Amino acid sequence: MNAPAPTIPATAAPLPAPKDPHLRKLANCIRFLSMDAVQKAKSGHPGAPMGMADIATVLFREFLNFDAADPHWVDRDRFVLSNGHASMLLYSLLYLTGYKDMTIDQLERFRQAGSKTAGHPEYRHADGIELTTGPLGQGIADSVGMALGERILNAEFGDDLVNHYTYVFMGDGCLMEGISQEAISFAGHLKLGHIIAFWDNNSITIDGSTRLSVSDNEVERFRASGWHVQEIDGHDTDAIREAIKVAQSVKDQPSMIACKTIIGFGFPTRAGTQKAHSDAPGEDEIAGARQRLDWDSPPFVIPEDLLNDWRQTGSRGSAARTAWAERVKSAPDGIRQEFERRTAGKLPDNWKQAILDAKKEFVEGGKDLASRQASGSVLNHLFAAIPELLGGSADLTPSNNTKATNQVEIKPGEYKGSYIHYGVREHGMGAAMNGLVLHGGLVPYGGTFMCFSDYNRPAIRLSALMQIRTIFVMTHDSIGLGEDGPTHQPVEHLAALRAIPNLGVYRPADAIETAECWELILDQPRRAALIALSRQPLPLLRKDATSENKSARGGYVLLEADGERRLTLFSTGSEVQLAVKARDILQQEGVPTAVVSMPCRLLFEEQDAAYKRSVLGKTKARVAVEAAVELGWERYIGFDGRFVGMHGFGESGKIADVYAKFGITVDAVVDAARDVVRAVEG
Amino acid sequence: MNAPAPTIPATAAPLPAPKDPHLRKLANCIRFLSMDAVQKAKSGHPGAPMGMADIATVLFREFLNFDAADPHWVDRDRFVLSNGHASMLLYSLLYLTGYKDMTIDQLERFRQAGSKTAGHPEYRHADGIELTTGPLGQGIADSVGMALGERILNAEFGDDLVNHYTYVFMGDGCLMEGISQEAISFAGHLKLGHIIAFWDNNSITIDGSTRLSVSDNEVERFRASGWHVQEIDGHDTDAIREAIKVAQSVKDQPSMIACKTIIGFGFPTRAGTQKAHSDAPGEDEIAGARQRLDWDSPPFVIPEDLLNDWRQTGSRGSAARTAWAERVKSAPDGIRQEFERRTAGKLPDNWKQAILDAKKEFVEGGKDLASRQASGSVLNHLFAAIPELLGGSADLTPSNNTKATNQVEIKPGEYKGSYIHYGVREHGMGAAMNGLVLHGGLVPYGGTFMCFSDYNRPAIRLSALMQIRTIFVMTHDSIGLGEDGPTHQPVEHLAALRAIPNLGVYRPADAIETAECWELILDQPRRAALIALSRQPLPLLRKDATSENKSARGGYVLLEADGERRLTLFSTGSEVQLAVKARDILQQEGVPTAVVSMPCRLLFEEQDAAYKRSVLGKTKARVAVEAAVELGWERYIGFDGRFVGMHGFGESGKIADVYAKFGITVDAVVDAARDVVRAVEG
Repeated sequence: MNAPAPTIPATAAPLPAPKDPHLRKLANCIRFLSMDAVQKAKSGHPGAPMGMADIATVLFREFLNFDAADPHWVDRDRFVLSNGHASMLLYSLLYLTGYKDMTIDQLERFRQAGSKTAGHPEYRHADGIELTTGPLGQGIADSVGMALGERILNAEFGDDLVNHYTYVFMGDGCLMEGISQEAISFAGHLKLGHIIAFWDNNSITIDGSTRLSVSDNEVERFRASGWHVQEIDGHDTDAIREAIKVAQSVKDQPSMIACKTIIGFGFPTRAGTQKAHSDAPGEDEIAGARQRLDWDSPPFVIPEDLLNDWRQTGSRGSAARTAWAERVKSAPDGIRQEFERRTAGKLPDNWKQAILDAKKEFVEGGKDLASRQASGSVLNHLFAAIPELLGGSADLTPSNNTKATNQVEIKPGEYKGSYIHYGVREHGMGAAMNGLVLHGGLVPYGGTFMCFSDYNRPAIRLSALMQIRTIFVMTHDSIGLGEDGPTHQPVEHLAALRAIPNLGVYRPADAIETAECWELILDQPRRAALIALSRQPLPLLRKDATSENKSARGGYVLLEADGERRLTLFSTGSEVQLAVKARDILQQEGVPTAVVSMPCRLLFEEQDAAYKRSVLGKTKARVAVEAAVELGWERYIGFDGRFVGMHGFGESGKIADVYAKFGITVDAVVDAARDVVRAVEG
Repeated sequence: MNAPAPTIPATAAPLPAPKDPHLRKLANCIRFLSMDAVQKAKSGHPGAPMGMADIATVLFREFLNFDAADPHWVDRDRFVLSNGHASMLLYSLLYLTGYKDMTIDQLERFRQAGSKTAGHPEYRHADGIELTTGPLGQGIADSVGMALGERILNAEFGDDLVNHYTYVFMGDGCLMEGISQEAISFAGHLKLGHIIAFWDNNSITIDGSTRLSVSDNEVERFRASGWHVQEIDGHDTDAIREAIKVAQSVKDQPSMIACKTIIGFGFPTRAGTQKAHSDAPGEDEIAGARQRLDWDSPPFVIPEDLLNDWRQTGSRGSAARTAWAERVKSAPDGIRQEFERRTAGKLPDNWKQAILDAKKEFVEGGKDLASRQASGSVLNHLFAAIPELLGGSADLTPSNNTKATNQVEIKPGEYKGSYIHYGVREHGMGAAMNGLVLHGGLVPYGGTFMCFSDYNRPAIRLSALMQIRTIFVMTHDSIGLGEDGPTHQPVEHLAALRAIPNLGVYRPADAIETAECWELILDQPRRAALIALSRQPLPLLRKDATSENKSARGGYVLLEADGERRLTLFSTGSEVQLAVKARDILQQEGVPTAVVSMPCRLLFEEQDAAYKRSVLGKTKARVAVEAAVELGWERYIGFDGRFVGMHGFGESGKIADVYAKFGITVDAVVDAARDVVRAVEG
């Protein structure tokens, strides 16, 4: 770290006199709510809230443009607590500034089941929690997406309607995570001037001094990525104020303010040590803090004058919000309506026509298309219909087919556009997309190879947990990737992704299903989505270009048996064609065979029992075929079933060769089918 | 990027005259083998091999200490191709320098099924491939582990036995990946002087110019992390030579040499453009390159004089290797034997006694222990027995119980020790551990919370793919983590990890099983391992402190039914105690019930059918209980079975409260059991 770790008095020496005693008192409100809540819960992290209380006080009281009475005000400044373990800092601020659902009772129930005050801030638990944070580094990376979203909407709707800052608190842990580099590199490249990040430079992590594990010069690192950086004493309220003013004046660079702080500021013995980081401090330590900070209010009680002052902070932005609402109202009709529609998260009325048009194009064209190509065609239609769609790829644009015709690229300082070159930053892309969704007004999707879903998995998980519609486009979705070999061939990824709750994993079998999957993804704003697409061409299995979405039930009978069903073949994506061909052979052999396509397991599981039974069929003669590991297919094929798929990692080679090598062929499906029919029918 | 992108002549202007025409010719051997192989395969990446050929030539010919006749020479310099898509660079070098199994036939079969020349270098495919690379950033991060391993062994065995360099080639993509920051930050902190990395600064990625997506000053970034940095023209062989000498002279800093190169150097129209990056160049382009580089040899034929020169490079290290072997031979007996044992990857003869001792301690103690605590105790025993064990944690040492008593910490410049503070760098830790294993002589394990297995998943995958024994210690393995809430509570992770081929996922039910799982992990040197450990105390379910390892078959009958089995309860880890208690109740109700503990699904699947049948039992009345998603349990419980576990994300709260909230209780197991018995028995 840049500055030496602070020397902490072993005994409770007097604290340095505050620059502004009143601000110190206001900050102490945060400190005591935080330590008292952690003490009551007997767990939590008091150190960072106490260390960052002065910064938070100046930021909220003098700069943050918000109105506690209208937490969803579209043009509010965003506040992101990237060091989410410092959650009591946020909860304290929400209570103090008067957010209605953050009551003192909630603070007293910190970290208890059923409360709004989870161990880490959880999106949707309470107003004012802009996002879920806790997994380190995600917050700063989401913030970059938020700040980018602000600039994109600003470019479209102008300063009158969109013009705000994204403020971020982050700790040493956030900066040690690799994702932080992807995020700051991306933000610096794009010259995002409306993000201001505060580094809680307290020189302490769980293991002890940061000197145990890190020696980076963070200031120089941020500068190397194009950030404007200042270094201040994080307890000097004058310095904090001046630094924020300077940061705001810097227009074409993101800003980082390195704040030297004392973790657990106010604790008599734990301040400045890792003991302040986590766990309940104990009654003695808290009593000592009360003495040192001259605080005689009982736990969870804020003196009235201080609370009143904080509540004024909570309503300080009311006038600005009203003025903004007036500007919206007086905007030209078309613009106002579009702005309101977009920011309300409502898609245009007729967007589904684009899906239908794409389907018609596929049926009329009648060509074999890789599902990634079909996806590209769907996007061409969607882009004309949904202006808030925002594309991108982690440096695989030509492979992912993520860029529609005529899509304008977003560049440093030029934010009018709808396509983003995320660079080789899968993780940063995933988090930035989360931030873009959270900001509102945009519907981002981003592509990479499916194998690298491993790289952005922590961001995928958070999108599912936050119940937001972040769209991950994952091409080259099996050994069908071919020559790049096992490092690039997903094998376990479908199972691993299907395991994530609230993530819709879609694997369309042809162009028609691809269009349907896109429709389903866009139709579910509270569900994260991942679409797995083939590298290799796929035959068109369906010719029905209607508005009916057969994929909507997750799994459906693509081809019913000709005769009473004696066998069911289950499949997804590029392997459905194998099942279809196998069915031809089996029907000829006198085995009436149904083919079930299951583009989305999650949606299938949500269907009623009768529908599921009708799809699964009565016969226990079942074969599943998927170029991936079996895990999960047992649910449908049972003890008697057979599985044709992968049993280990892939291999570099031509597509046909690797499919043959691993025995994922029509013949193999037919053999497995004969075998299972024999066994089941005895 | 630092330097402006090179201006590329639109027409095939003459190339700058080489500093050393002979070296240029040697480099051209790499260039033509690479472009001809890519052309023959009709896929691959010619640009980087052609751009880095001059650097590789100087490095291999004048510096790299290796002997193609003995690829496993312990004290060889390591060469890592982090930009693994440039695989033809490595394969060309291995062929040219005379590695026996890298024949010209293999180069001609580049990227074909069954060849040693996969699309990306695959560890174990051929000698001289030190590791699998391809997923960007992994190579540089593994290298840091290799370089650290070298220093640790050097500290123990001295310069005479261990004293070599790790050289790394890396591309723009490697540096954009977040893992690169974790790696360079970690290497800089530790002052690793024996790693020298070459950045192929060619300003091109798949999407086009790097200016589309990145503006970092990489030189300043590396300096901010404590690296020594030089900037050179990557085609100036004099400059390359001088830079390597300077880098070697820097003793207490890692070195980065930023090499300005032209991607596809020699191509007439594609050089310096993204068209050179991937795909077959076409016959015309290759013909043009032959003309420009004055090369008239047919494809896959290297002129004899040049091949002879390269072969001399391949045997250049022979004398050094012989001298080293002599030094080993003349080392004092105890040291020599220990060194040979360690570097052969053989554990000490009596190490299993440590497992037995730990078991005895647990049975004698008789206390409830969290499995993370039990694991800590096992490690205390193991450390006394296995000096090559090397512990660490990604800043969760006190929570992961990864540090044994008296374990000495490795510090910057002080490498005699066995514990590493990896910092908040889960991904970097995973990759560094892979590098430590690949280096040889050490058995690393590293801890974090299981939820953050998502952060190091790409490294976990590579350990499984490479078939190396990297050990991931994952504590707080369920909602039993409690108050930290859903961001920190793994739910889908067990299923997602079990999906990875060749990864042993262990979830012990008590202290005895914890000891057994450690034994199994250490006993399988070709298998990656992950041990999932509880935060909360677990009762001791077994009292048999013998050398028999019941966990060795992956799943076993912990308690057989008293009477003819009518029900089987399956479980793992912290939930086995629920199954045991439920069994008591069910037995009292007259339902003879067996409890199966399944600490490792992978090992269970490898058992013969008869054993599996004996464990699974005949009755279809089956209940699985695990505080995680169901995915995968269907394999054992079938259509009739019941599952007690998670169906979505967790919640912040006290352990007992969250278990109760999600219905993972003894009562729930009993209810499910009654239900399934009723249904199955009609």
